[in-house]
Amino acid sequence: MKASILTIGDEILIGQIVDTNSASIARHLNNAGIVVWERTSVGDQREQITEAVKRAMNQSDVVILTGGLGPTKDDITKKTLAELFGSRLVCDQTVADHVRRMLEARGIEYNRLNRDQALVPACCTVLFNAHGTAPGMWFEQNGKVVVSLPGVPFEMEHLMTDEVMPRLKARFSLRQIVHRTLITAGLAESMLAEKIADWENALPPYLHLAYLPAPGVVRLRLSAYEVEGESVSHEIDRQFAALQRIIPRYVLGFERATMQEIVHNLLTRRRQTLATAESCTGGSIAARFTAIPGASAYFLCGVVAYSNESKSNLLGVDPETIACRGAVSEEVARQMAEGARRTAGADYAVATTGIAGPAGGTEQKPVGTVWMAVAGPHRTVTLLKQCGTDRGQIIDRASAFALALLRDEIERDAAGE
Amino acid sequence: MKASILTIGDEILIGQIVDTNSASIARHLNNAGIVVWERTSVGDQREQITEAVKRAMNQSDVVILTGGLGPTKDDITKKTLAELFGSRLVCDQTVADHVRRMLEARGIEYNRLNRDQALVPACCTVLFNAHGTAPGMWFEQNGKVVVSLPGVPFEMEHLMTDEVMPRLKARFSLRQIVHRTLITAGLAESMLAEKIADWENALPPYLHLAYLPAPGVVRLRLSAYEVEGESVSHEIDRQFAALQRIIPRYVLGFERATMQEIVHNLLTRRRQTLATAESCTGGSIAARFTAIPGASAYFLCGVVAYSNESKSNLLGVDPETIACRGAVSEEVARQMAEGARRTAGADYAVATTGIAGPAGGTEQKPVGTVWMAVAGPHRTVTLLKQCGTDRGQIIDRASAFALALLRDEIERDAAGE
Repeated sequence: MKASILTIGDEILIGQIVDTNSASIARHLNNAGIVVWERTSVGDQREQITEAVKRAMNQSDVVILTGGLGPTKDDITKKTLAELFGSRLVCDQTVADHVRRMLEARGIEYNRLNRDQALVPACCTVLFNAHGTAPGMWFEQNGKVVVSLPGVPFEMEHLMTDEVMPRLKARFSLRQIVHRTLITAGLAESMLAEKIADWENALPPYLHLAYLPAPGVVRLRLSAYEVEGESVSHEIDRQFAALQRIIPRYVLGFERATMQEIVHNLLTRRRQTLATAESCTGGSIAARFTAIPGASAYFLCGVVAYSNESKSNLLGVDPETIACRGAVSEEVARQMAEGARRTAGADYAVATTGIAGPAGGTEQKPVGTVWMAVAGPHRTVTLLKQCGTDRGQIIDRASAFALALLRDEIERDAAGE
Repeated sequence: MKASILTIGDEILIGQIVDTNSASIARHLNNAGIVVWERTSVGDQREQITEAVKRAMNQSDVVILTGGLGPTKDDITKKTLAELFGSRLVCDQTVADHVRRMLEARGIEYNRLNRDQALVPACCTVLFNAHGTAPGMWFEQNGKVVVSLPGVPFEMEHLMTDEVMPRLKARFSLRQIVHRTLITAGLAESMLAEKIADWENALPPYLHLAYLPAPGVVRLRLSAYEVEGESVSHEIDRQFAALQRIIPRYVLGFERATMQEIVHNLLTRRRQTLATAESCTGGSIAARFTAIPGASAYFLCGVVAYSNESKSNLLGVDPETIACRGAVSEEVARQMAEGARRTAGADYAVATTGIAGPAGGTEQKPVGTVWMAVAGPHRTVTLLKQCGTDRGQIIDRASAFALALLRDEIERDAAGE
């Protein structure tokens, strides 16, 4: 079973938005055993849309489209699909009632443009969109399925989950796709590949290995397409276990686990608590933890101490130290972590202080210089890292290094018990 | 001049990563007057890559590829392009020396896999990648240009800026594309469209209008393709000025301005300072400001007060109030904002306290309930909002509402002076 994904909108082609819909649709399809063959984006133009849908229908069994379903003139997907399938637009009363109710609740006038949202090609099955005014549409022709969804990510996501996937599973008999990921840290891609070459060469032919490098980690993904899921999963378990014996020190975790999730799990399991004290990372580390459901079980508080005064007032950093060593210094990082740990009454605190740029760099401390510290029950450790030249990159990398340092300390303490 | 963008990698098709490269390449091309006709992603398979490149060369003058250039077996783009252009792989000594130096600096062994990074198709022009080990490659055939770049966003970005765009500008005589965006807030898309229908209908035919709705805002984009940039820019200025006269209360700003950038500009211009006190938004508001270069001019500090104790210790919230009214209450939001303003000695402080879920909701205060407050020089205002049902969405929306409240207060104070 093959699928193609087609996202529609000039805003994608001019780079005004990043297309996140394609990735989440791809995950839905993969989880159900449907292979995504190609992903395409075209503009809001009749010929482009028509040609892209036809091509996708030639190459795949299922085509999922998003975008171009808004109430305004520039959105033409619905009209184009009606033409393509030789169908006229008719009013769907359920959709019309829903749109009116939805707008009334939000105090928005029900006008001609909104009424047009209830027009759908007569030949399609309407997929009810509880979260928006543009309905989804399901077309079938010559055994192929074409589904058109609104481009608003939140609405698309609900329709994929509640309507599209159940219908695809009922309509087709699907085999399984298995993707499993092992995350390594501490080895460059080329060194990792050399170390595991024998293991890689001995993999069964139906398992495909991919290397996915990112700052600080290399993910190894094993994929098998259209197989019996359970036995393949067991085989991957065996292969990953063998791999862990080859590179025991370098395995960070599995699947989509991020460093913050690993720390989250460690702290939750050990019923320990955390505080953060951030300067250059500006709240990013706190935000990474608090984005995870259940963070309130261990995350007590965070301080974003941007000004020198706040470093002293909120975290008890000695103003003398700031004056002598500078705000970006090992000693200030240490005092920030220890101050946050003390103030919050937390088991661990992590701190960052650095120069995120673009201004503020000096010869001794260029942009990208970041000191980090972790204060724990037994000791405080510090680390100096050069985190790059771009502000966003520096914030990301400094957050990643600080989280890794925090994890190392928690694991060290756990091992010592 | 038309271009196609092709991103290569199984990780895109299975939804393991979101393809951000396409959007940034599209922005580069658009800025130089090159129309992006289509954007496609295919897997790491020889036939798929070959077919996609051929198709892109048929439809466009320029094809930009990213991905599949790593040192490991699963990356096959380079080999495939060599075959497609009938060229053999040869060693590029400059690249080889660069790779060896780069790895030495990072303490990584120079092995066979890395040596292969210096192999390039004999027919291509090598684009030197100062930031990574995989070089870019520039091919020409029958007047068409095909460029292959590494998939690491940071490396791709530098190569686009330093190598690809200057060469494209030198190689082709380009016209201009103009995109300009006006951001509205406070009107639903359909109401906005009705209010500005006369203006929209009177637009000159070479200006294309697009509506881009997002939570809380609708962006209006005017685009003109392959025109004389300066005169079109003036015409768009006139059109936007006319539009502002039609909906004066609803214009938020221009271009890619975000609410935090608008507040950033207001505070910078007025030389005023800011502190944040976040519970449910968990550092997101602080992180939004501190991501902007120059934030240290006004951003003094932020507190992520997740535990009740930290709300009292760090922000001076009365424990009685928390006990009587609950941590998610108007009074606690008010005390958080006022406490942060006082502690930091800031002109303004913004606070959030709410239930981000998935657990913690009650009948009176369901998941998504968020109280926010802004304390300023003259008064403190509070606002209650239902921010949705999904944790990530609640954090985003609560941050957006709190920022809008902050902006309103600063503008109100500015107008009162």
